Amino acid sequence: MIIQLNKNIKPAEKDAIVKKVNGLKYEANEVRTQKGTYLIGIGSSDFDIRQIGNMPGIDDIHIVSDSYKLVSRKWKVRPTIIDLGDGVIVGNGELAIMAGPCSIEGEAQIYETIAHLKASGIRMMRGGVYKPRSSPYAFRGLGIEGLELWYKHARAAGIKIVTEVMQVSQIEPMLEYVDIFQVGARNTQNFNLLDALGKVDKPVMIKRGISGTIDELLYSAEYVFSGGNERLILCERGIRTYEKASRNTMDLNAIPILKEKTHLPVIADPSHGIGIRRHVEAIALASVMAGADGVIYETHSNPYKAFSDGQQTIDFKESEALVKKMRASYELLRSF
Amino acid sequence: MIIQLNKNIKPAEKDAIVKKVNGLKYEANEVRTQKGTYLIGIGSSDFDIRQIGNMPGIDDIHIVSDSYKLVSRKWKVRPTIIDLGDGVIVGNGELAIMAGPCSIEGEAQIYETIAHLKASGIRMMRGGVYKPRSSPYAFRGLGIEGLELWYKHARAAGIKIVTEVMQVSQIEPMLEYVDIFQVGARNTQNFNLLDALGKVDKPVMIKRGISGTIDELLYSAEYVFSGGNERLILCERGIRTYEKASRNTMDLNAIPILKEKTHLPVIADPSHGIGIRRHVEAIALASVMAGADGVIYETHSNPYKAFSDGQQTIDFKESEALVKKMRASYELLRSF
Amino acid sequence: MIIQLNKNIKPAEKDAIVKKVNGLKYEANEVRTQKGTYLIGIGSSDFDIRQIGNMPGIDDIHIVSDSYKLVSRKWKVRPTIIDLGDGVIVGNGELAIMAGPCSIEGEAQIYETIAHLKASGIRMMRGGVYKPRSSPYAFRGLGIEGLELWYKHARAAGIKIVTEVMQVSQIEPMLEYVDIFQVGARNTQNFNLLDALGKVDKPVMIKRGISGTIDELLYSAEYVFSGGNERLILCERGIRTYEKASRNTMDLNAIPILKEKTHLPVIADPSHGIGIRRHVEAIALASVMAGADGVIYETHSNPYKAFSDGQQTIDFKESEALVKKMRASYELLRSF
Amino acid sequence: MIIQLNKNIKPAEKDAIVKKVNGLKYEANEVRTQKGTYLIGIGSSDFDIRQIGNMPGIDDIHIVSDSYKLVSRKWKVRPTIIDLGDGVIVGNGELAIMAGPCSIEGEAQIYETIAHLKASGIRMMRGGVYKPRSSPYAFRGLGIEGLELWYKHARAAGIKIVTEVMQVSQIEPMLEYVDIFQVGARNTQNFNLLDALGKVDKPVMIKRGISGTIDELLYSAEYVFSGGNERLILCERGIRTYEKASRNTMDLNAIPILKEKTHLPVIADPSHGIGIRRHVEAIALASVMAGADGVIYETHSNPYKAFSDGQQTIDFKESEALVKKMRASYELLRSF
Repeated sequence: MIIQLNKNIKPAEKDAIVKKVNGLKYEANEVRTQKGTYLIGIGSSDFDIRQIGNMPGIDDIHIVSDSYKLVSRKWKVRPTIIDLGDGVIVGNGELAIMAGPCSIEGEAQIYETIAHLKASGIRMMRGGVYKPRSSPYAFRGLGIEGLELWYKHARAAGIKIVTEVMQVSQIEPMLEYVDIFQVGARNTQNFNLLDALGKVDKPVMIKRGISGTIDELLYSAEYVFSGGNERLILCERGIRTYEKASRNTMDLNAIPILKEKTHLPVIADPSHGIGIRRHVEAIALASVMAGADGVIYETHSNPYKAFSDGQQTIDFKESEALVKKMRASYELLRSF
Repeated sequence: MIIQLNKNIKPAEKDAIVKKVNGLKYEANEVRTQKGTYLIGIGSSDFDIRQIGNMPGIDDIHIVSDSYKLVSRKWKVRPTIIDLGDGVIVGNGELAIMAGPCSIEGEAQIYETIAHLKASGIRMMRGGVYKPRSSPYAFRGLGIEGLELWYKHARAAGIKIVTEVMQVSQIEPMLEYVDIFQVGARNTQNFNLLDALGKVDKPVMIKRGISGTIDELLYSAEYVFSGGNERLILCERGIRTYEKASRNTMDLNAIPILKEKTHLPVIADPSHGIGIRRHVEAIALASVMAGADGVIYETHSNPYKAFSDGQQTIDFKESEALVKKMRASYELLRSF
Repeated sequence: MIIQLNKNIKPAEKDAIVKKVNGLKYEANEVRTQKGTYLIGIGSSDFDIRQIGNMPGIDDIHIVSDSYKLVSRKWKVRPTIIDLGDGVIVGNGELAIMAGPCSIEGEAQIYETIAHLKASGIRMMRGGVYKPRSSPYAFRGLGIEGLELWYKHARAAGIKIVTEVMQVSQIEPMLEYVDIFQVGARNTQNFNLLDALGKVDKPVMIKRGISGTIDELLYSAEYVFSGGNERLILCERGIRTYEKASRNTMDLNAIPILKEKTHLPVIADPSHGIGIRRHVEAIALASVMAGADGVIYETHSNPYKAFSDGQQTIDFKESEALVKKMRASYELLRSF
Repeated sequence: MIIQLNKNIKPAEKDAIVKKVNGLKYEANEVRTQKGTYLIGIGSSDFDIRQIGNMPGIDDIHIVSDSYKLVSRKWKVRPTIIDLGDGVIVGNGELAIMAGPCSIEGEAQIYETIAHLKASGIRMMRGGVYKPRSSPYAFRGLGIEGLELWYKHARAAGIKIVTEVMQVSQIEPMLEYVDIFQVGARNTQNFNLLDALGKVDKPVMIKRGISGTIDELLYSAEYVFSGGNERLILCERGIRTYEKASRNTMDLNAIPILKEKTHLPVIADPSHGIGIRRHVEAIALASVMAGADGVIYETHSNPYKAFSDGQQTIDFKESEALVKKMRASYELLRSF
């Protein structure tokens, strides 16, 4: 169960509610987010909701049978909208588009990417400054200096920054420059990182784990939410299967299933989902028609020279065409 | 290598070609289909194609590096079109739609389904008369009597019949009534069945195996083609993965990958691909945008009373809406 | 529920039992095997077993909550023993060993393999005369002539023949020569083949499907059993996963799980399970310690020249050593 | 390539070697571990090893074609032995056994577990004080206080402590008390944690990722090794597959494959590998016969009351029997 507490609740009132909840054999977890305070009751016995609902200090109460609670649509039917400021919004009925290179490589690349995004009306730029790499000898990103450089140009152009944070100690230095903290597929169950991002006043986008289940993705979101941060985005990016004709198996089933289970916006990543440049468009358009709130993809002025992920990165001309096709598809879907 | 032989080739000319091919360390397999005669050279040494190309009796020669040959797009660039007669065509630039129940249940059901299909402009009806069932105690279909009944009504209405054949001995009795023989996901590698369907003068639709690879699907098609039957359709229907939130994991990556690898038409089955009635539409539309030549799905006047697969079957009203949306999506995609 | 009917049951008694079963909302399926006659009740309502148990004509009755019935250990606690004659027995407390080449290649190979088996005290020889091959251009086996040749030498040496049957039409010609019909991993759910093998008076060994579940394997066995043939062996041979460092992922968990769920003997196939010659021994020994009733593996006088599967085939010297180690391991396990 | 540098190498000598390496189109990465200094050359061009081998300042040079280097057996043929002090050694030809509860729950539990271990001659105790949990509302462990308590009793009894570290900030406070830092399956690719553990003077045991490949596990070990810490242990604990009859699919193929690829000791975790209490023994014995250097498993005085993982935890009586059987199996294997 989820109990939304009134802002002006008195301590004695809260104590009484906790006592009542415990009396029903539910464990009460208090959660304070940037938006409100909740009591999350964990238990499984049946009870009459009216026994609690009219106690003083309670704004609302919901029974949520899912084992994740605050991210469940059973609690909050209206979709969550993430406002990044300056008119950039995720989840408000316009297709959210995030594009950019796999890795931030230098000033020239930042500059030309931003120019491309502006020309295409894209307001969110993706890019990595800390790169998780299987081999310790591979390029690991430009780090905080790269981020500062990127920030300088992006702010000037009104472009929002989406970038991966890999560990707790990076949050603080990155905080000023980042608009959406991305949790990568290898960190979906890095619970300490999720806990720490709960304390942050910036939106967080969580990618589905390399072979994570849909439920695990929702649990990971519950970590951040119950840690205090309600501004969450989920991202389907393909899962690991036996099929090796593509890098991953894009699980578009996850889009309608997630949209039904949670009120959070759901984004698709076709670049990682298929991992083959010339097929990114097909999977991007399919993602839109499957109901995604947005798409994140990799683009580079010269994919053949990209430091990383070049094989799945489209060039700016392809990107420009893709954006038009995605928007037309999104519009068609909304017209149904 | 694939060598297309001239219709009027003389035995001595053919012998000379085989000798030449063997001399290049290639094994020559002669393949006769309903459309022509080919020599399929299996080997890996390099050679100059002109050494063979101008020998008498040869219409055309192609080097095909894929290990499947006759189904490869490296040989035949133009897409294969399957003409079922009466103006019903798969792969000709119109979305091919196949709809109907999981199982044929009786005359009333046949009748009302056909009425629904006609009203929606659908010309191909799917349905099972032989049902592969995990448990030996489950309903196994109406068999040949059901097929005859179905045929009577379908022919009268100008509707084509798509139905699964499970074993070699069923081919002969089914032949008269069937327009497309479907090979089910449990039979994708039933090589004897594939061999036998190579001898049949009816189109064959092969479903991807339960956990089959894309390459295995192409090999299975090569079996039927090299057995003599060029009229083939491939069908993506989801694969088995660790994710249990959906019945299967619809692998839409397979659509653009197959379309690139083969000249055969590719159909998507969202009903089995996600296995959840209320999400069939999202995956059907996504399949169209991923580039599928057609969609096959399950519909029933009352899904709750269907003998099988009810949980993934949509009703006629939903079906009617779906068809309109799929056609609009297909039109949009073709306009790009 | 499973009701064992008395051999001398009168028709009126049987009718009364069926009526009673139906009255409990169970569907009654009559099953006649070579050993007896059963009524399999399919349903889920609760009932008092005594209501039926003492009706005339019943030998025994069991409630089996599993959805497979006749192969369940909940019905038959004592393990099934398969007697092949001449003192060759599977499942009787001695390790059952089946060894031989992937494909039967010719008389010399048969001869030298049999000599090796005899020297090692192995009484069952595996080998393929019909080979399922992904590519239609690959070697498909010597067929019935190869089997006859093999039979001639094997009978003379007191060696039993284990070989794969791929389709219904092969059963009849193979019947005289085969001691154990093997159903391959691609045919585990070829239900027509399973039905037909239910009518055969020879033991059947069913391999787990390429990505089959443990329950599906049990269901496939239920097909053969309910078709009339109780002499069944199950075989774990590895499953398809994302890991490509080995050919398949040997699922040794399946051994103790199957041994608990069913009374049928369970055999392990380390050759296919790992697919790497030099590691076959490790997985064979592990299989024995996991509780397998036997091991089937590939051996050849010269694996480098084997027509198929050479990369996972051990030579006779390795085979000889392996047999000793497996027997010592089995003995140790039984001593615990 | 791996170049082991001499302890007394002069700067000018090192510069000359780096220059030479770069001249061969190899990137030179200097790695300092607690045991020595290496230059790891990353590249792919062919070269004559003697061009470098006799340069001053070099102790040894090896060509390693694997993309992981320092953990490869191509470099170091002799197995790595991990000495924990007080005669407790992993990888020295005695079966390494680590046993204990999933979670450390309190002093009584610590006390009785240690008593059981001592009685069975087990010198390493596993247990979690920081627990990664999918749900943020679940028990997350006793933390550093629990570890201190555990340490007090374990030290007194001569028992070594194996426990999971979840994040970089925990390393420092845990360092004094821990004998083997365990990296859990959800952190196998937490590269920052791996980097940090490279700086630590304590052995590290890395579990295979939830759906990690064998190569990824080796790369993760390369991170720690190239970070400076050579004392590494690998652990197979089952992978995620479609099969849900067991918690994970224990991949025993990984044991011989890892033993061939790396010089590091390899441990098996049957408790997580199958996840079913009554089958832990079968998989533990199979792991030993597959060639594991040791086994880690969960035991608790009363599994039914364990805070976590009770369903896969064996009691002390079962543990006592298991240890004897594992040792007998290990002895038999070594006798071959």
